Amino acid sequence: MSQTPPLLGHLAIIGLGLIGSSIARAVRDYGVARQVTVTDASAQVRTIARDLNLGKVVETSADAVRDADMVILCIPVAQCGSVMAEIERHLKPGAIVSDVGSVKGAVVRDMIPHMPANVHFVPAHPVAGTEQSGPEAGFAELFADRWCILTPPDGTNDSAVKTTTAFWQALGADVEIMPIDHHDQVLAITSHLPHLIAFTIVGTASHAEKASDTEIIKFSAGGFRDFTRIAASDPTMWRDIFLNNKAAVLEMLTRFNNDLAALTKAIRDEDGETLFKTFASSRKTRLEIIKMGQDSAAPDFGREHHRKKPGAIPLPYSSSLDPD
Amino acid sequence: MSQTPPLLGHLAIIGLGLIGSSIARAVRDYGVARQVTVTDASAQVRTIARDLNLGKVVETSADAVRDADMVILCIPVAQCGSVMAEIERHLKPGAIVSDVGSVKGAVVRDMIPHMPANVHFVPAHPVAGTEQSGPEAGFAELFADRWCILTPPDGTNDSAVKTTTAFWQALGADVEIMPIDHHDQVLAITSHLPHLIAFTIVGTASHAEKASDTEIIKFSAGGFRDFTRIAASDPTMWRDIFLNNKAAVLEMLTRFNNDLAALTKAIRDEDGETLFKTFASSRKTRLEIIKMGQDSAAPDFGREHHRKKPGAIPLPYSSSLDPD
Repeated sequence: MSQTPPLLGHLAIIGLGLIGSSIARAVRDYGVARQVTVTDASAQVRTIARDLNLGKVVETSADAVRDADMVILCIPVAQCGSVMAEIERHLKPGAIVSDVGSVKGAVVRDMIPHMPANVHFVPAHPVAGTEQSGPEAGFAELFADRWCILTPPDGTNDSAVKTTTAFWQALGADVEIMPIDHHDQVLAITSHLPHLIAFTIVGTASHAEKASDTEIIKFSAGGFRDFTRIAASDPTMWRDIFLNNKAAVLEMLTRFNNDLAALTKAIRDEDGETLFKTFASSRKTRLEIIKMGQDSAAPDFGREHHRKKPGAIPLPYSSSLDPD
Repeated sequence: MSQTPPLLGHLAIIGLGLIGSSIARAVRDYGVARQVTVTDASAQVRTIARDLNLGKVVETSADAVRDADMVILCIPVAQCGSVMAEIERHLKPGAIVSDVGSVKGAVVRDMIPHMPANVHFVPAHPVAGTEQSGPEAGFAELFADRWCILTPPDGTNDSAVKTTTAFWQALGADVEIMPIDHHDQVLAITSHLPHLIAFTIVGTASHAEKASDTEIIKFSAGGFRDFTRIAASDPTMWRDIFLNNKAAVLEMLTRFNNDLAALTKAIRDEDGETLFKTFASSRKTRLEIIKMGQDSAAPDFGREHHRKKPGAIPLPYSSSLDPD
């Protein structure tokens, strides 16, 4: 038993991928709710959830939300509307309904029509994740020191916003509240555009004629491997994000293309000064991210460097070679 | 004393940034040479090199190379020609001259005119690094399990290539030999294009009108922060790389732009199938990189995840809110 009573009575989590299962673990480990009910559309995932002890596992979303004080949809954004339609008649009056979608405009648009008048809708987006997916990939510390953005529609009950804020803080996150449209513009820059670029460059490298696939892999430590991490993220989730934040993503793409064209011109014109100035200013951004605790200060993300077979390669002494 | 005699008699390292100082540490720690002489154009760096015990520190490149059996230039690629001009009259007959430049065509073009007939030129590129620079950033394990590419010009002495191969293997690297032009094409894909894209996107984000600089930093864990790491790399080094591998980089940029245009069209047309197929194939590349030991299998590059202030946020119990 924790020393303070749990924040929530009964929490329901629908969808047990990386985010849903991480929430379940954190809530369990930190004692954030008295009772947790979980479900997933996949029977296989539900079985894993039982093995992982993520909460009381039920078969349907409708069963999960009955009697829940807070319901969180942790599913691809394109599915939020239909799951809301499944649960709307089963929600407890006064319950808080939330989600974790990476786009908010489309999710709110799809969920609002199914929102009963006597529940509180507090859309949320924890800006956290890894490139892995599924219930086994989750871990309780995923949200520590990350930001969770809430985008409550106008008129949302203040207490519901406060409870949702306290919930994410209990999971270790900092909470920011912002308008729905603004969220989608900010995330288009800090998340959606970077993912699209990463997916693109992995494709470009994979189809390069001038280098074999093996060479691309072997020499990926020159920079390419970094991009492959976020490009390994869940394809369904990302398809849905781009289809549901189209306008903001297309606008950022236009800006990116203009900037890339300017650097391309500098290379073509051998304009070293422009290249140097652009490159030098990038360091500042990195340092600010580290200062604000949003990335590791360790070089190379703190990747491990091992010495392979130390001293295992016996070599003849050679002081110098004969000149040709 | 190590159990086998050192591979080299006398090694000279010119330039003590991340790479040069890492070589010096590895050679010292693993007993790869009997004697190491180091220098750097900066007096401040030479002082640090003495404090770090990187080898015998001398003032000039000419002094460094006298009596050296192997000389390695660890300097920005645009400076290789002029440093060669400084040392050419001081090289020991039979010495091996090498470098660590990220482009090979331009470096070989600039160094060859100053190469005495009685030394052996074995250009090298260890595909390893971090975003940090300078002598303090180096560490002995930097090259472990990374690839070092040698691009010996036609007619290079076989024994010199073998010794250089053995040298990099002693530092923990795997060695691959390839033609000069091919190196520059492969690295344009696996290293130069990714860096240019990272520099570009950091600039795009920094000048975004729709999000404040603080928001860009706060919500960078959505993907953007990954790009800021390689965009924090040394600006002089990277300016020189782009100016000296212009043709291959411009060719890869054209391909990247075509691929990005195709994905942009898929978003505009709401063509979810194309998006899904492209995204799904990226995972394979990531898995191959991990399988070949070129990145960590740990999620999120193995970044640390901490729980902030565990249990430190006392919260009132609230079973559910009253309906509005």
